[in-house]
Amino acid sequence: MNSDKKISIAVIKRLPRYYRYLSDLLKMDITRISSKELSQRMGITASQIRQDLNCFGGFGQQGYGYNVESLYNEIGNILGVNDKFNVVIIGAGNMGQALSNYTNFDKRGFKLIGIFDTNPELIGKKLRDIEIMDFNTFDKFISDKTIDIAMLCVPYEKTPSVANKVASLGVKGLWNFSPMDLEIPYDVIIENVHLSDSLMVLGYRVKEKQRKM
Amino acid sequence: MNSDKKISIAVIKRLPRYYRYLSDLLKMDITRISSKELSQRMGITASQIRQDLNCFGGFGQQGYGYNVESLYNEIGNILGVNDKFNVVIIGAGNMGQALSNYTNFDKRGFKLIGIFDTNPELIGKKLRDIEIMDFNTFDKFISDKTIDIAMLCVPYEKTPSVANKVASLGVKGLWNFSPMDLEIPYDVIIENVHLSDSLMVLGYRVKEKQRKM
Repeated sequence: MNSDKKISIAVIKRLPRYYRYLSDLLKMDITRISSKELSQRMGITASQIRQDLNCFGGFGQQGYGYNVESLYNEIGNILGVNDKFNVVIIGAGNMGQALSNYTNFDKRGFKLIGIFDTNPELIGKKLRDIEIMDFNTFDKFISDKTIDIAMLCVPYEKTPSVANKVASLGVKGLWNFSPMDLEIPYDVIIENVHLSDSLMVLGYRVKEKQRKM
Repeated sequence: MNSDKKISIAVIKRLPRYYRYLSDLLKMDITRISSKELSQRMGITASQIRQDLNCFGGFGQQGYGYNVESLYNEIGNILGVNDKFNVVIIGAGNMGQALSNYTNFDKRGFKLIGIFDTNPELIGKKLRDIEIMDFNTFDKFISDKTIDIAMLCVPYEKTPSVANKVASLGVKGLWNFSPMDLEIPYDVIIENVHLSDSLMVLGYRVKEKQRKM
């Protein structure tokens, strides 16, 4: 891969899916696959797949297809699956607790090092051996650490002010679960999780099917 | 819109995003917008936007752009935002509880009519005035109701068997939160929520930025 080459964010957003599918193929001992077969499995056009994979050098050979393992490793390298991230959860309500229990994140290198809330009933309790700390002490906590990602699981109204605070203290990335496209005046990377987008697509597909019946 | 025209699922998956952005524009009293401006806001190429919106008849006029309100209404109609859905949550752990508190879903027509678990400590408790019921009574519950969507918030290992059971009883759509591409031998619509895909993209962008610094 030519590491100087800029890969567009649209392609990057599709890579985790490729990565999952390739991982499934490896588990099934499938060693090579054509863009056409990948296309059928993933519901993406074969030409889109070839375009995407060409972005980082590609590995397809005419008449052979892609070598599953090297493609899997290469995509993993690009995504940085061997990178380590220090992560905190802000907001220890249901969503925060649910995320703290996603042990899958650990395996991907996302290490949970702190959980914060402002609710006195939650502060001092433990989630997965990590004590919930007072969010008002977050500035002290971060003073001698690098925190790559804060998972924001706070109520809708509080999200912008909490985001501003953690970004101003040097957190590099925000994973926002409030249903808004968060924008703040800090140089921070934000990924908004829009759960209702996925639910609306499901609703559409269910109704579409019912109309056909 | 020509209702006979088939809109591809790739386009449908982008519609909730257009819908959110157009809703923001309406709140700001912006009445019309060009594909170029929409492109800058959304980070999608202008040509992709024109292609997407052309799929359902489009509304763009050269030199004028799109009428925000009619585009918003049209996309809302396609997505069926005025449709009603009966929804149940299976699994009343943290994720199930978090979803039961997303009142935003209500506003979009997704009505929560039941919550189920097998844990005796949870059965009988209430979430948002809805009593958690024993999943073993789900077949009786569904016998006189249409359930459009089951939100599956059960442990990874149990997900396939729970999915098979609710699909066999006639639930039309499954919203799966286990980190797997669920496939079952029933004629049911499945949307898998892959939280770690979004986290991996965030991780990539954070590291990419750090490399540049």
